[in-house]
Amino acid sequence: MAKTARKKVYVDGPRPDVRVPFTEVELDGGEEPVRLYDTSGPGSDPERGLPPLRGAWIEERRGDGKGNTQLHYARQGTVTPEMEFVAVREGLEPEFVRDEVAAGRAIIPANVNHPETEPMIIGRNFLTKINANIGTSAVSDSIAAEVEKLTWATKWGADTVMDLSTGKHIHETREHIVRNSAVPIGTVPLYQALEKVDGDPAKLNWEVYRETILEQAEQGVDYMTVHAGVLLRYVPLAADRVTGIVSRGGSIMAAWCLAHHEESFLYTHFRELCEIFAEYDISFSLGDGLRPGSIADANDEAQFAELRTLGELTKIAWEYDVQVMVEGPGHVPMHKIKENVDLQQEICGEAPFYTLGPLTTDVAPAYDHITSAIGAAMIGWFGTAMLCYVTPKEHLGLPNRDDVKEGVIAYKIAAHAADLAKGHPAAQAWDDALSKARFEFRWEDQFNLSLDPDRAREYHDETLPAEPAKTAHFCSMCGPKFCSMKISQELKDYAQQGMREKSEEFAETGGKVYLPVVEAN
Amino acid sequence: MAKTARKKVYVDGPRPDVRVPFTEVELDGGEEPVRLYDTSGPGSDPERGLPPLRGAWIEERRGDGKGNTQLHYARQGTVTPEMEFVAVREGLEPEFVRDEVAAGRAIIPANVNHPETEPMIIGRNFLTKINANIGTSAVSDSIAAEVEKLTWATKWGADTVMDLSTGKHIHETREHIVRNSAVPIGTVPLYQALEKVDGDPAKLNWEVYRETILEQAEQGVDYMTVHAGVLLRYVPLAADRVTGIVSRGGSIMAAWCLAHHEESFLYTHFRELCEIFAEYDISFSLGDGLRPGSIADANDEAQFAELRTLGELTKIAWEYDVQVMVEGPGHVPMHKIKENVDLQQEICGEAPFYTLGPLTTDVAPAYDHITSAIGAAMIGWFGTAMLCYVTPKEHLGLPNRDDVKEGVIAYKIAAHAADLAKGHPAAQAWDDALSKARFEFRWEDQFNLSLDPDRAREYHDETLPAEPAKTAHFCSMCGPKFCSMKISQELKDYAQQGMREKSEEFAETGGKVYLPVVEAN
Repeated sequence: MAKTARKKVYVDGPRPDVRVPFTEVELDGGEEPVRLYDTSGPGSDPERGLPPLRGAWIEERRGDGKGNTQLHYARQGTVTPEMEFVAVREGLEPEFVRDEVAAGRAIIPANVNHPETEPMIIGRNFLTKINANIGTSAVSDSIAAEVEKLTWATKWGADTVMDLSTGKHIHETREHIVRNSAVPIGTVPLYQALEKVDGDPAKLNWEVYRETILEQAEQGVDYMTVHAGVLLRYVPLAADRVTGIVSRGGSIMAAWCLAHHEESFLYTHFRELCEIFAEYDISFSLGDGLRPGSIADANDEAQFAELRTLGELTKIAWEYDVQVMVEGPGHVPMHKIKENVDLQQEICGEAPFYTLGPLTTDVAPAYDHITSAIGAAMIGWFGTAMLCYVTPKEHLGLPNRDDVKEGVIAYKIAAHAADLAKGHPAAQAWDDALSKARFEFRWEDQFNLSLDPDRAREYHDETLPAEPAKTAHFCSMCGPKFCSMKISQELKDYAQQGMREKSEEFAETGGKVYLPVVEAN
Repeated sequence: MAKTARKKVYVDGPRPDVRVPFTEVELDGGEEPVRLYDTSGPGSDPERGLPPLRGAWIEERRGDGKGNTQLHYARQGTVTPEMEFVAVREGLEPEFVRDEVAAGRAIIPANVNHPETEPMIIGRNFLTKINANIGTSAVSDSIAAEVEKLTWATKWGADTVMDLSTGKHIHETREHIVRNSAVPIGTVPLYQALEKVDGDPAKLNWEVYRETILEQAEQGVDYMTVHAGVLLRYVPLAADRVTGIVSRGGSIMAAWCLAHHEESFLYTHFRELCEIFAEYDISFSLGDGLRPGSIADANDEAQFAELRTLGELTKIAWEYDVQVMVEGPGHVPMHKIKENVDLQQEICGEAPFYTLGPLTTDVAPAYDHITSAIGAAMIGWFGTAMLCYVTPKEHLGLPNRDDVKEGVIAYKIAAHAADLAKGHPAAQAWDDALSKARFEFRWEDQFNLSLDPDRAREYHDETLPAEPAKTAHFCSMCGPKFCSMKISQELKDYAQQGMREKSEEFAETGGKVYLPVVEAN
């Protein structure tokens, strides 16, 4: 057997400095290699940070003045290097990418102060993306651990990472994360603003929030969650819910509105926010502060009232050429999932939808990566562009390194299942390559094509540890006895050459068949 | 805080010997206790087996002669004690249970030689059920380990267990499993028949198969997978598939048909099988030997041709008052799942559907409990009555005890998500109880209401191990600072008493709110 492997390769785009990474899987048996989307970045020394891949592109655009966002260029008819990069990455035409960005149906989060990113796109007509949340808290505050989680999450396939740090060292943690991230970084600036006013929501105001936004903008945050849709009049709508307001940002803004009996300063100052976001090309992630926190509260008036306001804000942001995506729930039973996407797409002019799960039941804490992967796969199929992961620790504790991996893998599964259901051609090719390897007992190819080659190999070896078992034409489910010939080949010959004739020949050869059984029953 | 707990209780039915087990969860804070469906059985000494709960009921019916199946009685208008038991267990009227069984829409697998079962029902108008596969193989053959897996699987919620043993000691293993099982046991008799002819499919014949059926019938197997739909003319339809025939039973019968160039003996002797099944009240699980083994092969002609034959066989079995369910795939992308249920229900006269997954992508070996829980939840929602679990070891190796648990929990999630989406009232009540406990920081109640209380507690304690944290009104996601008051209560007062007034009062009390945030963002 030839040696097979996974390795990183770069594919050149139309300009020499557009070089797009892929994981290439070499296959055995004369099979064409398979190229997989690669989010792992170029690798770095955490103390030095990553090289500024987009540095020259951003520099070329200096002098264009404010509003030099990807949406701005797309609307002007200009294909940016970022769009060219994305086109190669997704296997699509640059002009298609530009069209989708121009229409607001997709965003390329790319703060001018984060040149280290490898451009990626979020939109329903592209591969479904996933986000991983990391961040320090009052209970756990190691910066090194968070940078390690970032690297770990992108190794397994996170397309963006949100730094949700609270507690001490927020600025410094974020600096380390941004400088070491080849994927866009998102934040919820409200958390840091709250720290600045000693954790008392009532003391928040536009000035401290604006100052926080500018601080994070300068550092290079690519998209920011802004809970500007939690309006004063919506707060009472959550009163009779089983779980009230569960979004942290939503709770903070509800508290502020109640304390001041004023309209949310995020809403009243939204146009000023747009001006800042345009200057840095920060994308909005319009937060769903009133999302349901339980099955009982799904799709209620509080949630959809806020959604209508998010639709209004989307269109305001577009006036400023600012890119926008819109956040969604949360906890939703399966039969109520589709309505979420349909309404959001209608109300928000097809701006990309970015959902947390949703969890399809509340009864399985410690397994909410699974309860939510079910909902995430479905909502992705229905048109959600990015899925925010949920780890097994959701509702219970802070995710550690293992939890981050479990969450990312569960969501890569959901996103890929969605791509398959949407009929994405590259998605199907990956499944076919793995299934063909499985059927032909090319074990190493099967491992290398897996979302998690390490664990697939480990599980195989647990039952059949000997090295020859990895080239054997059987597996532990049936053992060696059933696997003497290839029924697939027999079937093909049989179909081609006539049934009676082959039947006789088959009987003469001993009547043995190849039973490629790796499934029970 | 009062002490809360999970405990087993028994609810009396209309006759004194119908006593139905539930897990009762005592709750704190004046909440009503919650009763959950309980599959764990009465517990036993593995050497002695379980008490014969149904012994008297079966004895009462002796003398009725052949055909004394649950379907027979249901059609006659008789409500059996088994139906009464099921009615209490599902919270429905006995007459409704009888109606569903009589219509063939539901089955109560209950071999007269397996009196140890606690009756359960499989049908789309009841709670969605799950099956766990266990069994020895040529590679791993400890009987004690399999009995332990049985107990373990039912502890976590398996509604039925299939003993898929191959290799040595098949009879003895099954004997131990049946005698210790309070849930129905299913088998694939073809496996043992194949052992009797030295593993050579060509040597199989009706006589050795019939003898095997009788042997297992006498032991008390409640339902048997019979791959009688793999007809000679269908075998070539699988020739051009990416993964050919992946069902073990399907492969064996395809091999037999090819070797003899004769129609399957399972098909030609099907009426004789019905006579035997009627005598013992064994239910058919009509196997889908041509189910797809990859995304590429889903919903193809081979699969649906076999399904049409299974529809024909279903109606033949019903002539003999034999209960029937029909097996389904396998590997199916999300957008092709619904067609499977719709076709099966139409073709098979609404006989219960029993599917393996389906896996919604092929690219995640080692995580196929997740790839398939997505498909299982959806297909359950669409009307599948029982979901056969998939463990993380699927395609790679033999499941150990931990894998069995992972598979069972993933499938309990899928089944429950399906029940919620179908609008089952008891399902929603469970979610609401847990969510209310979560919102009110009744941590112990949240743990005890969980599918896996042990792991929920363990994950919580990993971040906040101190005992007081379990009564604390905060969690590790936000830490203690945000959680000073109950926003839920504030919101209710606010809505009731007018906004301005409360706003002032709220500001006076310090403007603090209760932020019940156990979710990020």
